[in-house]
Amino acid sequence: MPDPDAETQAAALAEAVSAGDRRALARAITLAESTLPAHRAAARALLARLVGVGDALRVGLSGAPGVGKSTFIEGFGMMLVERGLKVAVLAVDPSSARTGGSILGDKTRMDRLSRAPGAFIRPSPSGAGLGGVARRTREAIRLCEAAGYDVILVETVGVGQSEIMVAEMTDVFALLLAPGGGDELQGVKRGIMEIADLVIVNKADGDLEPAARRTAADYAGALRLLRRRPHDPDGYPQALTVSALSERGFEDVWQAISALDAERRARGWRAARRRDQAVRWFRFEVSQGLEAAFRADPEAGAALPALEAQVAEGALAPDAAAEAALEKFIRR
Amino acid sequence: MPDPDAETQAAALAEAVSAGDRRALARAITLAESTLPAHRAAARALLARLVGVGDALRVGLSGAPGVGKSTFIEGFGMMLVERGLKVAVLAVDPSSARTGGSILGDKTRMDRLSRAPGAFIRPSPSGAGLGGVARRTREAIRLCEAAGYDVILVETVGVGQSEIMVAEMTDVFALLLAPGGGDELQGVKRGIMEIADLVIVNKADGDLEPAARRTAADYAGALRLLRRRPHDPDGYPQALTVSALSERGFEDVWQAISALDAERRARGWRAARRRDQAVRWFRFEVSQGLEAAFRADPEAGAALPALEAQVAEGALAPDAAAEAALEKFIRR
Repeated sequence: MPDPDAETQAAALAEAVSAGDRRALARAITLAESTLPAHRAAARALLARLVGVGDALRVGLSGAPGVGKSTFIEGFGMMLVERGLKVAVLAVDPSSARTGGSILGDKTRMDRLSRAPGAFIRPSPSGAGLGGVARRTREAIRLCEAAGYDVILVETVGVGQSEIMVAEMTDVFALLLAPGGGDELQGVKRGIMEIADLVIVNKADGDLEPAARRTAADYAGALRLLRRRPHDPDGYPQALTVSALSERGFEDVWQAISALDAERRARGWRAARRRDQAVRWFRFEVSQGLEAAFRADPEAGAALPALEAQVAEGALAPDAAAEAALEKFIRR
Repeated sequence: MPDPDAETQAAALAEAVSAGDRRALARAITLAESTLPAHRAAARALLARLVGVGDALRVGLSGAPGVGKSTFIEGFGMMLVERGLKVAVLAVDPSSARTGGSILGDKTRMDRLSRAPGAFIRPSPSGAGLGGVARRTREAIRLCEAAGYDVILVETVGVGQSEIMVAEMTDVFALLLAPGGGDELQGVKRGIMEIADLVIVNKADGDLEPAARRTAADYAGALRLLRRRPHDPDGYPQALTVSALSERGFEDVWQAISALDAERRARGWRAARRRDQAVRWFRFEVSQGLEAAFRADPEAGAALPALEAQVAEGALAPDAAAEAALEKFIRR
């Protein structure tokens, strides 16, 4: 039985969000970020009303601290805004759960973009854990899309699994790097290179320009050798250089992103990717929910640490331990 | 309460296996491969008795059909046997579930090795699904180890997730390739290059020798650029060439594998890796068991297909759908 209060709130908010009201969008995202049961119910009702509204290009962007990510997003975002596109920037930083968010930081470091009427910037929610941040970011993406944004940039720092998570909720995934040759990998995590559609080498300016070009060429070669994906058009993954500081290369990046998206759309791959993503989230949420219930179980959950320790020591086989734990939960 | 029959059977078999009796080992593996509850109980009892017995170097080897995997294993295995090492070869081929196993095939294609007294060859179990094959292979590895084998080669074809699975149960993982340049990727799956400690380019003989050397050099460069792992000694991952046909390069491969293992052992990384692997299996088995119970649930399991279809169509948000499914299972 739907809650009538949640329904009323959702109806009004849905109308304001889809009319492009920025304050309504901000309130809707705050609702989606809340963990209060009443807010969750309202957020779910809101999202249900907005199913199918809007159609944005979702772009994931990852880069370690120091590669010039904020400068890049500010300049790249401004270029898109000046072309008449509405741009939303969402940040995903699971570590901000510890520091209580980075609201001030995000707005300060993207000064021009945050004042542009066609842009909307939302810092990372300061929430509990990657799972919580993931759900809220997915919902925020949907809300921005329903509010009529054309391009949604979801940026993340290279922390743990956050890049994989962002790639799982976007249409195109780009990795921003600083120039640097050979073995040096700038904190790029295992598995990231494999999901990047674009590698963008920043700081192609001044003394660093030759190094940036060399780095891009090296990655282009390596990506060609180590990657083959059936759903990539020719020429992708691509490696490019930009100078965020002198605002050069943004056009090429946009061209590479939008051409890739157009090709994928034309072949039905984008729709298929979104369907796959939705089904994977669903399965992931189910399995997370099951494990949470399992861990919260007074008998099974309590037995876990001791079983896990015995498995780690080699005193108990993993399968036997799992069987022992599951018996406590399921056979009741 | 342990089953007394299973205990008696386990005690006798454990003694024979740890005494190095090959027929007992074969019987023990057959027991571990069975899905009959009585056999499972006996296998668990057996494995419990063999905890800590033996210490083998577990080597994973993946290669697509046509790269010369059998010829490589036969020659490489014979070299190890001739050095006085006991070698077990276990095959993992989830596709053999369909064809009913490949017992004859495996023994025929490794004619010399199958007749060597120091070698033990076991084909892939013809079981249900990757999960079943995984559990039985892990148990077979433990049994071979307890039977005194020094090196356990776990070979797999490039099918789906089987390589990741094999890497998760071995100490060193090697990928066998045929010569081939540039874009051509010989069916190497996403994620495999990232887990390989060694890339071995076969067929470095006759006309193909220059191509094999070039391929190895290309991979060496690409691996250096795209990979950095804190737990790799200098120089790894490594790319080498061999000629399985003319039995050249085996020494270098063994040298690379054993030096890597020695280094990891000395630093405690091998023990840490095995601990991590065991804990991951445990968690994986728990989550698989939970999902199996969930799917088998008359209410929750029955609701899944419709919910998943609605999620795929975009008619229902993944989180809301997961919540609806979980409610049926947990709140009872």
